[in-house]
Amino acid sequence: MYPPIIQKLIELFSKFPTVGPRTAARFVFYLIKSPKEKVDQLLEAVSELKEKIKSCSFCFDQFEPSTTSGQGGKGNLCKICSNPIRDKNLLCIVEKETDLASIENTKKYKGLYFVLGGTVSSLRKSDIEKLRIKELRERIKNPSDFGISTNQFQEIILAINPTTEGEATSLYLERELKPLACGEQGRTIKITRLGRGLPVGGELEYADEETLRSAFEGRK
Amino acid sequence: MYPPIIQKLIELFSKFPTVGPRTAARFVFYLIKSPKEKVDQLLEAVSELKEKIKSCSFCFDQFEPSTTSGQGGKGNLCKICSNPIRDKNLLCIVEKETDLASIENTKKYKGLYFVLGGTVSSLRKSDIEKLRIKELRERIKNPSDFGISTNQFQEIILAINPTTEGEATSLYLERELKPLACGEQGRTIKITRLGRGLPVGGELEYADEETLRSAFEGRK
Amino acid sequence: MYPPIIQKLIELFSKFPTVGPRTAARFVFYLIKSPKEKVDQLLEAVSELKEKIKSCSFCFDQFEPSTTSGQGGKGNLCKICSNPIRDKNLLCIVEKETDLASIENTKKYKGLYFVLGGTVSSLRKSDIEKLRIKELRERIKNPSDFGISTNQFQEIILAINPTTEGEATSLYLERELKPLACGEQGRTIKITRLGRGLPVGGELEYADEETLRSAFEGRK
Amino acid sequence: MYPPIIQKLIELFSKFPTVGPRTAARFVFYLIKSPKEKVDQLLEAVSELKEKIKSCSFCFDQFEPSTTSGQGGKGNLCKICSNPIRDKNLLCIVEKETDLASIENTKKYKGLYFVLGGTVSSLRKSDIEKLRIKELRERIKNPSDFGISTNQFQEIILAINPTTEGEATSLYLERELKPLACGEQGRTIKITRLGRGLPVGGELEYADEETLRSAFEGRK
Repeated sequence: MYPPIIQKLIELFSKFPTVGPRTAARFVFYLIKSPKEKVDQLLEAVSELKEKIKSCSFCFDQFEPSTTSGQGGKGNLCKICSNPIRDKNLLCIVEKETDLASIENTKKYKGLYFVLGGTVSSLRKSDIEKLRIKELRERIKNPSDFGISTNQFQEIILAINPTTEGEATSLYLERELKPLACGEQGRTIKITRLGRGLPVGGELEYADEETLRSAFEGRK
Repeated sequence: MYPPIIQKLIELFSKFPTVGPRTAARFVFYLIKSPKEKVDQLLEAVSELKEKIKSCSFCFDQFEPSTTSGQGGKGNLCKICSNPIRDKNLLCIVEKETDLASIENTKKYKGLYFVLGGTVSSLRKSDIEKLRIKELRERIKNPSDFGISTNQFQEIILAINPTTEGEATSLYLERELKPLACGEQGRTIKITRLGRGLPVGGELEYADEETLRSAFEGRK
Repeated sequence: MYPPIIQKLIELFSKFPTVGPRTAARFVFYLIKSPKEKVDQLLEAVSELKEKIKSCSFCFDQFEPSTTSGQGGKGNLCKICSNPIRDKNLLCIVEKETDLASIENTKKYKGLYFVLGGTVSSLRKSDIEKLRIKELRERIKNPSDFGISTNQFQEIILAINPTTEGEATSLYLERELKPLACGEQGRTIKITRLGRGLPVGGELEYADEETLRSAFEGRK
Repeated sequence: MYPPIIQKLIELFSKFPTVGPRTAARFVFYLIKSPKEKVDQLLEAVSELKEKIKSCSFCFDQFEPSTTSGQGGKGNLCKICSNPIRDKNLLCIVEKETDLASIENTKKYKGLYFVLGGTVSSLRKSDIEKLRIKELRERIKNPSDFGISTNQFQEIILAINPTTEGEATSLYLERELKPLACGEQGRTIKITRLGRGLPVGGELEYADEETLRSAFEGRK
């Protein structure tokens, strides 16, 4: 239907998350109508993204290394991992980068992170290998090998979504991390999960039993 | 449009919660098509409801007094209030009867209840007077006056929805109950609220900051 | 959970169209809180419905026979079928009573109706027997046998929903009625369907191809 | 929160139609995770779009001029306008390019198009000047001046969405085009609108009166 160039771009945009062909077509006509300098800005920003953004060697979050002594991360560590005042006793495991950003927005948590890279719906080997389990284990065993100035974390927080997939992943992580947590040399690391309960704006009548039970247990 | 009898019944059903005129019309035609004995069953059940269901003299929940020694409540007390094995140290304040039922379904809570009768969106006197504040205060002061075999509750749980209205109501209740809670004769009653956090199936990415903060605080 | 009387009424209301157990519970507590005279009004209206509402002997719509010469239908015919100024050349076949009411609200159509009593998803005999096909055929053949003062309709309008089920039903009706429509004695009856096109508020971008094609064909 | 490069790209994507900051963030992480050659493909396709796509000098649809004698449009005319077998008697006015594509998908319409460039919610001069009214008038007056081999259209179809804004725009167009349509030299052009009615899958019960009235008028 559309000219080949438009058709091709619709296909490329259709692969973006949440985008179907109809929305993709709207994106293309939005670009056609945008002034050239706006489109050039976009092209430049995307090019820069691939050139300048790196993955942190400890937490795997994406960061922009500072060229000089600036505000970006240092060397191969991101801004959070290289920040001397972050609490090195706490490690919070998240599924993806945007979850890390959501937690940072609360300004409540002051420890370090680790981006797992997804969740698993089954415990099949091929699924689990997509997650950074090996990398996580290494970082928990010897944080200082990765530039983090601590010998051992005191608490590992599993901040994985309480969805079905997330729960399966949390269970798997607990089982995998337990030997590390209460291991040789008398080391003990507490493994915790985010509290469950009623969210702001929620209603008892529509809450499932599990959530309501947690809300009662966690009352204060 | 419809014959007067149908029209009138549509109007009466339209006053039911969540029902608009279109659904009300569907209700009427459902009744027209139902066999007479089904409709008679409904008529009888509604009549019985008004005759037999009473409000509990302690908690204000609706109950069916047992004629003999049966499974209903005793005298003026409902089944829960008159149950000797319920924990008389705990009083859980709920907005409405269906919230009480939701909590009972979890089988987690074993104390008593009090049905407040609503929430307030403002602290205007006319709004507050619709709630059973005076009745609540009397029952907390002297539970035994109302047939409850305890001198004093140890904990009052505000199980009000964490919506805007519910929060305003909880704040008001805390202020009102505080003098009773840490009052004369060295009596102290703990006042608690349900725990907040991520509900089952929730996602960090879509949680508000307040909920996420509570989830971090309540981790375990 | 709830007392038996409440539980029973929840079950009865749960059978109402569109009503689930949660809404049914809200209905019950709405009735408990309603003043007795309101509930009595409802009980009376439901009783009257079963006593006074009749099915029209021609169109099967529900009507309230007038006791005197009043505004209700006459004898066994409803208000529309017994109205001398309705156009006896037109017969509009609808699925259910509420569709008839929707069409009457437009004040556009002045002919007669026939309530088919449903649609079929398959052409299985057991499904088709639930519809009033035989009754429809009789009324088209000899309208005057049923108190309608015409020898023959000029047009039969299939005002069945353009859903998948409705389309299957319309196709079946067309096939069944064709022999009657262009039958012996040179009688010819036009069989029509409602026009398709974009509804008010609709958008070309979200219309299916079939609808858009009809909109082009029906342009004016 | 995010590094400046990511933050900037989130802002640029947030300006895309239907995209908010959360979806924009997902787009950025999708690009970060995509292999470099995929991103380069996207960059190239966007660059090509701005270089190669032109606006048709008659209908204003976007097209890709053919370099040789290929399948694209000829000269300044798009593929449809330069196609000798399209019916030059019909002109269909659409709001935007994607509506044109929807109509082409039906394979029902064989005439020409004109892309108006929007709809108006008011008849304020500043709003109306955003539409291509002047251009439309010129093309209707003298199609051959714009490379279309006809002296006069026979029918102008207003294929504008039947939304509130679309209806206002159609009314305005009818008033504006009437003098051209039945003008000097005995020329008469029919002005039509798309047919209204029930869409495929629609239900009588949920149709507005206007739609239902049109469905009755357009029955066949």
